[in-house]
Parts: sequence; structure tokens; C-alpha cells
Amino acid sequence: MDKRMEQQIAFSLEIDKEKNVYRQTHLSGHGRNENDAEHAWHMAIMAYLLKEYSNEPIDISRVMIMCLIHDIVEIDAGDTYAYDKEALATQKEREDAAKERIFSLLPEDQRKELTAIFDEFEAYETPEAKFAHTMDNFQPLLLNDSNEGGDWIEHGVGSDVVYNRQRKNKLGSEKIFEVTDAILKKNIERGSLKKA
Amino acid sequence: MDKRMEQQIAFSLEIDKEKNVYRQTHLSGHGRNENDAEHAWHMAIMAYLLKEYSNEPIDISRVMIMCLIHDIVEIDAGDTYAYDKEALATQKEREDAAKERIFSLLPEDQRKELTAIFDEFEAYETPEAKFAHTMDNFQPLLLNDSNEGGDWIEHGVGSDVVYNRQRKNKLGSEKIFEVTDAILKKNIERGSLKKA
Repeated sequence: MDKRMEQQIAFSLEIDKEKNVYRQTHLSGHGRNENDAEHAWHMAIMAYLLKEYSNEPIDISRVMIMCLIHDIVEIDAGDTYAYDKEALATQKEREDAAKERIFSLLPEDQRKELTAIFDEFEAYETPEAKFAHTMDNFQPLLLNDSNEGGDWIEHGVGSDVVYNRQRKNKLGSEKIFEVTDAILKKNIERGSLKKA
Repeated sequence: MDKRMEQQIAFSLEIDKEKNVYRQTHLSGHGRNENDAEHAWHMAIMAYLLKEYSNEPIDISRVMIMCLIHDIVEIDAGDTYAYDKEALATQKEREDAAKERIFSLLPEDQRKELTAIFDEFEAYETPEAKFAHTMDNFQPLLLNDSNEGGDWIEHGVGSDVVYNRQRKNKLGSEKIFEVTDAILKKNIERGSLKKA
């Protein structure tokens, strides 16, 4: 096997570990915690299905690969709960080191390419990144809503904090933010989300 | 929420169940059984990374969505182990019924679109379907090889049966079949795969 293929296979095996990074979100039907690989798979399909709602034209292929790899750094850095202030403070440093280590398993051209896609997601500027972020927020919102907001109840999260994050869905899709807003209002009303 | 969005969201929630369909393959590091959503995620990233080895030019966006949805029918039909003759006999009937039920949750145009992508994969004829199938075989091969062929040992599978399936990797990629062949030979040599 040549060096290039060897590197691609080493990376392919390495990312298998993402299946063991568990998130705060629970599967529908009050299931177990979801892991990062499942979350990324779900986001990529939703991006494909809901692409008509993107505010701007998007390259869906780029959005899909962006969704698929956006959490790879968590293999080393772990999942940082969206509403955990302390962990959020050190998140960037942990994730930068992971990005360097993990993408360096690839051949140099693919290391650059995947790092660029990862960085584009983080920068939140292109239409593709904005839409991928909308999926990153909307996918767990759907699961949590299907479980009567159990994840918010467990963490005692207030609506202000959740809105601060979910409001950005508007950047990727005005239409999906309308649905987001309706879901959040319903959960405030039923007491799953503390009004703040 | 309008009817179209409602249907798209109903489908998005339904496919969450794929995360509870477990396969015979085990995660690397002698981990737990892998589920279908994780497998599909892994295949789609591998397709993106290894696309240069496709025998024919491919639309990688189509390959990725094909990889992502190719096992959705198993939500109803369950996973059929590649080397289980009895289950293989009823597989098509079970999967056809599931395909009808699950994709019908979508708006009509998307039901048609996803059904066509699913059928294209099954038909194994287009360059995209051939390459997606190569990933469907090669991804669990890598995991199983990293676990010293534990899945073959557990099922007492013979090399003839495995070759019958894995030989088709050649249809998508001659180059990846070379690696497949080397991995299988190594496993026959170390006794993980019974020579037949």
C-alpha cells in the first residue's frame, strides 16, 4: 500500500472514535445520549432535505461534508455542552490542538482541504457555514422537543441562553428560524424551558 | 408550520431511529456493535476522502447522500448480516415495505427523489452506486481488520463467502480492491478468516 493510501486509511480509522463522543442530547423516544457521529449523520441528511430553506444559494456537497466533519476535533477535545460556560472558555484551545493532530494524519493536500472546511464552519461567514450551523442547532432542537424538552429540564437552562444560540438559525434560514421560534415558545409555555 | 415543512420534519424525526439499528460490525478498539447511522456517516466521509480511487468519474454529492440514506429501510427491516443466508432470502421484501412507509413521510417530490437514490444504490449500476457499495464493504472491513477479524471469527465465516462480497469492490475501485485483497489475505494467514 502506498503512503498516501496508508495515511487516508489511518485517518479513516481514527475518526471511528467519534462514535464514542457522547453529547447532552438524547435520542427521540427518551432514548440514550446521542453521539457525535450520529449527530453529524443526521445533520447532513437534514441539510440535504431542507436546503430549499437556505437564505442564500448553497453548495450542498460542501454543506454535507462540513456537517459530517465539524465535530471531529471532539475525539480529543470532548463534547462541550452549548450552555456550559466554563467548558466554553477553554473550548477553542482544546479544539485547535485536536484539529492539528487529527487532520495531520491525512496527506498534506487533504489535511489542508479538511482543515479549511472545518475552519469555514467555525468562522460562520459563508452561506454554507451558516446553513450547516442552522442544522447543528436545529437537529438537537427537534430531538429535545420530541422528548418534551428533557435536556433543558435536566440542565435547568433558561430561555435567554437558548435563544442566544438558536436565534442564529436566522443567519442560515429565516424559515427554519420561524419553526425554531415556535418550538421554543411551545417549550416555554409547557415549562420545559425556564422563561428568563 | 406548512404541510411541506411538517412532512420534512416528520421524516427527519423518523430517521432518528436508525441510530438504534445495530450491525454485526464492532467499533475499533474491540468496541461495542456499530449502528447504521454511524456506519453511514463513516462511509460518506470515506467516500469523500477516497473519491480519487473511483474507477469512473463520480458526483460526490450524490455518493454522499446515497451513503447517508442507504440503510434507512433497516429502521423497519432490521440489519441483515451480509453472510446470513436465511435473512438474505427475505431481505428484499422486508426492505421494500419499509422503503414505501418511510419515504412516504416526505413531500411527494422528495419521496420520489430519495426513493430514486435508494433504488440506484440497490441496482449497483451507476458509477456512484458502485463506489458507494465499495464504501459499504470497505468501511466494516477496516474496522473488523483493526479488531483482528473478530467479527469473522465470531460468525465462523469462510473466505469464499467474504470474497464473493468483497470482490465487488473492484466494480467501484480497482485500487481499493487491491487493499481489500491484501487485508483479506492477511486475515486468512493469521487464521481470522477460514480458508475455503
